[in-house]
Order: sequence, then C-alpha cells, then structure tokens
Amino acid sequence: MNTNPDQGTPAASNVRGAEYPRIHADLRVTFRLEAPGAQSVQVQPGGDGNGLGNGPFAMQRDSAGVWTVTTPPAVPGFHYYWLLVDGVAVNDPSSQTYFGYGRPTSGVEVPEEGGVEILEPSVDFYEPQDVPHGEVRIHWYRAGTTGEWRSAYVYTPPGYDTAAATRYPVLYLQHGAGEDETGWTKQGRANFILDNLIAAGEAVPMIVVMECGYAMPASVPFGPGFLQQASQSFGSLLIQDLIPAVDAAYRTIADREHRAIAGLSMGGFQALHAGLTHLDIFAWIGAFSGARLEASELDTAYDGVFSDPAIFNRQVRLLWLSAGTTEERFYQGIQSLHAALEQKKIAHEIYVSEGTSHEWQTWRRSLHAFAPRLFWR
Amino acid sequence: MNTNPDQGTPAASNVRGAEYPRIHADLRVTFRLEAPGAQSVQVQPGGDGNGLGNGPFAMQRDSAGVWTVTTPPAVPGFHYYWLLVDGVAVNDPSSQTYFGYGRPTSGVEVPEEGGVEILEPSVDFYEPQDVPHGEVRIHWYRAGTTGEWRSAYVYTPPGYDTAAATRYPVLYLQHGAGEDETGWTKQGRANFILDNLIAAGEAVPMIVVMECGYAMPASVPFGPGFLQQASQSFGSLLIQDLIPAVDAAYRTIADREHRAIAGLSMGGFQALHAGLTHLDIFAWIGAFSGARLEASELDTAYDGVFSDPAIFNRQVRLLWLSAGTTEERFYQGIQSLHAALEQKKIAHEIYVSEGTSHEWQTWRRSLHAFAPRLFWR
Repeated sequence: MNTNPDQGTPAASNVRGAEYPRIHADLRVTFRLEAPGAQSVQVQPGGDGNGLGNGPFAMQRDSAGVWTVTTPPAVPGFHYYWLLVDGVAVNDPSSQTYFGYGRPTSGVEVPEEGGVEILEPSVDFYEPQDVPHGEVRIHWYRAGTTGEWRSAYVYTPPGYDTAAATRYPVLYLQHGAGEDETGWTKQGRANFILDNLIAAGEAVPMIVVMECGYAMPASVPFGPGFLQQASQSFGSLLIQDLIPAVDAAYRTIADREHRAIAGLSMGGFQALHAGLTHLDIFAWIGAFSGARLEASELDTAYDGVFSDPAIFNRQVRLLWLSAGTTEERFYQGIQSLHAALEQKKIAHEIYVSEGTSHEWQTWRRSLHAFAPRLFWR
Repeated sequence: MNTNPDQGTPAASNVRGAEYPRIHADLRVTFRLEAPGAQSVQVQPGGDGNGLGNGPFAMQRDSAGVWTVTTPPAVPGFHYYWLLVDGVAVNDPSSQTYFGYGRPTSGVEVPEEGGVEILEPSVDFYEPQDVPHGEVRIHWYRAGTTGEWRSAYVYTPPGYDTAAATRYPVLYLQHGAGEDETGWTKQGRANFILDNLIAAGEAVPMIVVMECGYAMPASVPFGPGFLQQASQSFGSLLIQDLIPAVDAAYRTIADREHRAIAGLSMGGFQALHAGLTHLDIFAWIGAFSGARLEASELDTAYDGVFSDPAIFNRQVRLLWLSAGTTEERFYQGIQSLHAALEQKKIAHEIYVSEGTSHEWQTWRRSLHAFAPRLFWR
C-alpha cells in the first residue's frame, strides 16, 4: 500500500526513539510491528470518523516477520488504536499508552499541518508554546463518600505560586467513559490550551480540577442506568468531598459565580447532571459531545430546571453545548436540543467542531472555545 | 498448576474492575488472558531474583481460549512483566502500564503481607496512610541545553502551600535506564514514602525533583560509553537548566548544604557523577544499586575527589550506597567499594535490602532508609 516515496516522520506520541508509527505529509499513517511468530497482525482504530477507517486494517508481513500497513489520510488530532495479534487486542510497544477503553491504550497524534484542511482554530492552540506554563498537580484527598484516598489532577495557572493574594475561579472538567483523571491533560492537552489562552488574554486565569469520574463499584455493568448511576455517585463525591477538598487546598473563589463544570461524553452527561441540579454551586455548565436530552423531556429534566426560562436565564451564566460534525448521534443531538432550547427561550450557546468526530480533537477545540466564555463579569 | 483452593485477590496494580492478575495468600500470582486465536501465550517477568522465575512461563489454554498460569511465590514489591502472544511481547490489558524497558510495560504489585518473610522495614511504609499528603506537580520548564520544553515531577511536602515563609531543602531523585520521570512516584511511591516519614518525624520536609534522565539524542546506542554519555548530558541539563528552574519556581534553600542527589541503577551512576563532580552544588549523595567503581579507580575517579579523604569528609555530608542482597553484581559491587572506602577512610554509609533484587522494592526501601539521613544539621 505504501507507494508514496514520502517516508513520513515519527508521531509525537511515539515512545522515545521509536520510528513508527510514522505520519506522512498527506496524513496517511504507517504502523509497524516486528512479530515473526504471529499468523496475523491488524491495526484497530479506536474511534470512527477519523479517516483511519472503522474496521481493522490487515498488516502485511515481510520475509523477516515485520508487519506494516499504511492507512488512508487521518483526521488531525489524537486517535486511540490497538493491534490485533492473532486476534488478541494488544498495545503497540512503539506508542505511549493513554487510559481509554478501561485500560492503557495506544494512541497516535496526527498533527494539524498537512493535507487535510482543518485550520480553524489555530493549529497550535494545544501545543506547548513559549508562554508561561501552569502546573498540573496530583492532589490526594480523603473521600468520605467512597471511603478511599483519591487523587485529582489540578491545573494551577501560571503565577499561582507567586500571586499569594490572588484567588481564582475553578472549572471542574471531566473525561469520558473508560478514561480517567489523566485524560484531559495527557490526551486533551488541557493545560497547554489554558496556558495559551491565558497568555493571549483570551481566558481568565483559572484552576482546572480533573478527577476520575468513577465513584461507584467497578461491578456496575455498562448498560441501562449506567450513566444515571455514574452521575449520581460522582455527583455525591463532587459535592461532598472534592469541592470542599479543593476549596480547602487552593486559593479558590468559593462561590457559584466562580465555579464551572464541564465534561466530554459521559463526563458531559455528569456535568449537566451535577450542574443543573446544583445551581447553588455552579453557574457555568458545559457538555462536550455529552448532551442527551429530548425536547419532550425539557420541562421535567433535572428537577424541572428548564420549566421557568426567566429564572433559569437569571441563574445560569452559561449553558454551553458542543459536538463534532462527524459524530452523527451527538451532532444531531445538540441540533435538536438547540432548537428546543431556542423555542423555550432558554439562553445557551452551541459550538460545532468541523470535520471531527467522537474523539479528543473535538474536545480540545471545545475546551478552547468554552474556556474564554467563563468567569467574565 | 493452580491446585490451591485459595483463589487470591486482584492485584492493586490491576486496571479498575480487572480480576486478574490475582495474588494468593502465599504470594503465588495467577495471570490470565483471553486469547482464543493465539497458538501460545507466556508470561515474561521483567526482572530476576523476584521469585517469579527468569524465563517465560507457559500459560495453559482452556477450551474457551482463556490462558492462565500460576507462578511460584513472588518476592513482595513491584515487578515488571509482559506477555508473549505467539512470541510477540505485549502488555497485559488487565494491568496498569508503567514506563520501563523504554516503553509502557505491565507491572504487578505484590503486597508484603503474606507467606514470604520480608518484614523489615514496616510493610506499609510505601502505602498511602491517613497522614497529610504532599502533592506531585508536573512542572514545565524551558531547557536551553536540549532546546525543548521539558517537564519534571516535583513532590512538595504537606503544608507547602500554606507555609508561605518556609523554605525547603531539595532532593534530586533519578530513575533507572529505560524508565522516565514518572517512575519514582508511580512504581516507587516516593511521595507516599516521604509523606509517611515526614508524618512520623523521621525525615525533614523536603522537595523532591524527579526528571527524565535522558538528555541526549535517542540514537545513542546502549553499550560502551552509554552511561558516561547519559551522565554528562543529564549533568549539563541538571546544572544549567533544571536546578535554576526549580530554585526559581519553588521556595528552596538554594545552597549545597540543602541540596541532595540520588538515583537508582543508571540514575545512581548519574547521581554519583553529578554529585561528586559538583561538590559546590551538592553535599548529600546517594546511589541505589548504582555504584560502579573498582577500588583501583578510587584515586582517579570523579576528578580525584577521593584522593584527599580529609577534604572529602569535610565537604561531603553524606555518601550513601545501597543494593539488594539478591542482585549479585550490585551487591558485590557495594561490598567491595565499601571495603575500599573503609580502607581509605572515606566516610560513607551502606544499606542492604534483604531478599530483594534489581527491582523497585530495593529502591523503595533505599529511599525510606536514605531520606531520614538527609538535611539534619
């Protein structure tokens, strides 16, 4: 398949020194595995709508037992993937692992520069620039609701340590199903996105708290009721343990006007649940590829929070919904919700990520568009 | 092989909800992989001298294509391992990954409680206790020597954020070959070890800085000269970039009397190199399973630092060497170095970890024994 003379360059997501996966100028990706004892090796992209294709790609074996395949041009951004060695799903030893699908999973970072025309927003908004950098802190706290020591990832903005008299607003930011508290920084680059926005004066300096969204027994099966149970158990942890721990440990402005919650996919569902049922605690609410609400449910959902638009619009500083154009279910979902909210005159904002699917590029862009809308007077 | 009725308990290193690997009461470990399409599956322990054995263990297939094996009793502690699926080295999807061997690698945590008698020091010294916890911060800085943005893991002790007038001594702590800046907290539990020591009043509150020890091109081959080049390049990064960045960002006491350096294996080699050739910068030096010095080299090594014992003993507050009893080369190495240093009347301390090999349990214990020896007047 690799008929192009362009040999590509190693992906930024490779482990130190690994030559593969390689990204070509037209954003095709070549994967490679040395596996002389295997009968078949395939590449399985974790998402769909990312240009890599949906099904597994067969890799071709050479005489030395090295298997390779080159995919069609990929959509820029971060894509989970794994290898199937004789049918067994395993990680690529050449790539870093990222927690997704409930386990450490390989990922490949496809840069924006290249043949695919997705140039909005600026392609380097999630790369580390020569600007002041905040820190990401692993913060341990005792959680009474789950009876365990847990850790949250906490972004503190540049200058936090020296601006001893300054207090900051806080965004609680949740990952998706199968991921954990490392996702928003490792896959999502949330810290670099905030660094760059703050340096440009486009977002106010804020603290961002990222915790693992699972606060229920691991035995709860994925199926009907899962999202509801995930939201209720995480909501209890959030309200009773996490927010008090953060307000005790950091120089926060501990009121609803300076507290936001957002999340992606399952985390968006959790953010809507926690936010809309706790307007005494949150005034800014975002759901990235996570709004699941039928127009018919509007009057009763979330304890009837939408039933009086005047009260809602006075209380909620921001209700913000996003999706990518190529994740059909979520894209249609926010379009119909948008129409229903418009009709009911519920103030809200919609953001659409062009050409991206149910993947991290949609959520990186969502954070980049959402954070500047927070905490303005 | 699994004839014991004891079914064991899931390892603490498993991903959320994974039932295998399981640790039995006598510390045998059962591994399991669903791989109906594989012709053979084996478990390969990453280290030796850990009770699991050196070679790969064949797993047995049942009629549903599920492969299992139970190992002999393991030495307590953290052990790297991987699976061989039809001869291809891959990670176990049931375990977390840890950066080792130059790639994300599976690991299994075997608790101290159980049938193997390794009870010194207290078995819970590296577990999170109900004591105040410090933070681990991912801190970005611009490194002139390598021309890149790099990140260090920085442990700040409990109370750091509120004790605004307090300044702290700093320990620079390095991982081994094939690992990275995440090793000392993820595999090594350095933060919990310090939390517990500080809570017990056995160590003074200190900052611990953990960076990736690679500051040279990835193309440098492992072989003769590798350690020397790794030490020189990392030494330049440390002295010219990392220490100034840490002293600028944190409330350090920025003098040699309050600055220590230590490391394990390759990191121990790097610590001896950086410390002993920069006594203007470091006064406390430790090498865990990393001392490689023949008695015949004593007079000339490290720019002749040992040539005048009186000067050395006046300048160096601590020279501290350790090894496990079952890592023969390093254990013999510190015994012979110990004898040579004794004969030359070079002040130093030796610590021996009973029954552990070239693995993290030796280094957890080494840190637990080393940290209390630092920064006393």
